[in-house]
Amino acid sequence: MQITTALKEYSEHFNQYLPNYFIAPSGAEKRVVEAMCYSVTNGGKRLRPFLVYETAKLFGIDFEHSLNCAVALECLHSYSLIHDDLPAMDNDDLRRGKPTCHKAFDEATAILAGDGLLTYAFELLADERTHKDPIIRNHLITALAKGAGAFDGMVAGQMLDLLTEKNQTELSAETLIKHIEEMKTGRLISFACIAGAILGKATPEQYQALFDYSRGIGIAFQITDDILDIIGNQKLMGKTLRKDDKQGKLTFVNLYGLEKAQQIAADLISKAQNALNIFGDKAQTLKDLAQFILERNH
Amino acid sequence: MQITTALKEYSEHFNQYLPNYFIAPSGAEKRVVEAMCYSVTNGGKRLRPFLVYETAKLFGIDFEHSLNCAVALECLHSYSLIHDDLPAMDNDDLRRGKPTCHKAFDEATAILAGDGLLTYAFELLADERTHKDPIIRNHLITALAKGAGAFDGMVAGQMLDLLTEKNQTELSAETLIKHIEEMKTGRLISFACIAGAILGKATPEQYQALFDYSRGIGIAFQITDDILDIIGNQKLMGKTLRKDDKQGKLTFVNLYGLEKAQQIAADLISKAQNALNIFGDKAQTLKDLAQFILERNH
Repeated sequence: MQITTALKEYSEHFNQYLPNYFIAPSGAEKRVVEAMCYSVTNGGKRLRPFLVYETAKLFGIDFEHSLNCAVALECLHSYSLIHDDLPAMDNDDLRRGKPTCHKAFDEATAILAGDGLLTYAFELLADERTHKDPIIRNHLITALAKGAGAFDGMVAGQMLDLLTEKNQTELSAETLIKHIEEMKTGRLISFACIAGAILGKATPEQYQALFDYSRGIGIAFQITDDILDIIGNQKLMGKTLRKDDKQGKLTFVNLYGLEKAQQIAADLISKAQNALNIFGDKAQTLKDLAQFILERNH
Repeated sequence: MQITTALKEYSEHFNQYLPNYFIAPSGAEKRVVEAMCYSVTNGGKRLRPFLVYETAKLFGIDFEHSLNCAVALECLHSYSLIHDDLPAMDNDDLRRGKPTCHKAFDEATAILAGDGLLTYAFELLADERTHKDPIIRNHLITALAKGAGAFDGMVAGQMLDLLTEKNQTELSAETLIKHIEEMKTGRLISFACIAGAILGKATPEQYQALFDYSRGIGIAFQITDDILDIIGNQKLMGKTLRKDDKQGKLTFVNLYGLEKAQQIAADLISKAQNALNIFGDKAQTLKDLAQFILERNH
């Protein structure tokens, strides 16, 4: 099966289950749950949930038993997009071709919807549906909190990203970009793969292989995102392009140029694929996914 | 010992340990950790951590073994204040007599600092320092996530609070105010007391008693906050007063008038104190704290 078909099938399956997770209360406060649901069901590719599913599958875990963790991660991802789009942050009006949360609702509701999704991610991970063993659930919570956190995770990456626009740091561009890409995008993609390893009680060797894979695709994903920001089709991308460029943001593309950035991404993907060799044929879908990340057009 | 002295001693002890929890990274991204630390060390009364400590003490748990959970709760409380103060929300310049986070730093940093504190709260609860038993840690995470969440917790209460300013609901004022106070302030105060019960492996009867106590003091706390907003000393309070009144917010005070609101608070406190009778003399400090909440002037 083609990787695009596999991703699409998973995504449709995942989307069917999603509304069950967002049963709004009956009072007027339901507005915030509606805003959360609006953002989570706003047509993402479900790359992160798919990674949870595919890495868990290496250990014999099925769709149903990886779903709760996959939904938690997608909630966390959605929260980060909602807050990132806010006027005080990236000030984006469009996300996947539709109005961003603060445009569809209002700014206060969008702040609360992001807060609600972040909180809900941890509620879901702590739930027995994630895994019957509380030690596994705790491990997942720790991994997600560190990966999404302010000390060395996604929030730290976003802070650094904001600061580079203002030239408020003395780090070399190369060190800086590595930090930003790794923390801002890489940490959550790493969590997606590590989650499969945790759910599947991987050996240290297997855990390391999935971690290496996730690091490679995580940075490559961000590089291709930057490339698409320059050469992508605005309609396919569903968001305003060339924004990073206009805002003077530091990216691999404006640091190395288009061609070298593409080569860096290709090398990372190749290494990521090799890291999975210990899993044999079972990892073919994950290898194909890495190739898809490199070659995608949206 | 007087309750104000006990609270002050606890608060000083708690504050000594707090900086250890906010060791900033060396890179420029440390700005967000500094903003988090600025807000958490901004001179709060530490009422919620003190409640965790005092309720856990009923079960023989000492300061050290309730500290991690108490810090987690204070992080969550601080996040809610940072986001609540944002221009799109309550738009407050002062908090406890000092510039709010977005005034001391900037709006984007304040959004990220709130996100970082919320995430960190769950990281701390999942940590072994909170309790050696992962089942207990999971229980705490679930309780905090639900209490702080968007479906029936603090975020839902904040949503409802925002909507009432715009008369966007058909609920009766009485029902509404109850919902708002219970969810917006009550849920976290409930968590503080329930956390002690969870850490101490309380019996169902003990758990219920602490829950009843927390509900009473939670709503009474919000009522006295509303009263102080009208008759308080601005300098002692450290924030702009009469703001709720000017914004046309629905409070117990503008619904029932000052005198009746005070009576409602007094009744709630009395019931809360009685709920603790099953603990005997050991609960005297918690009873005194309830009285302090009723009679406080800041």
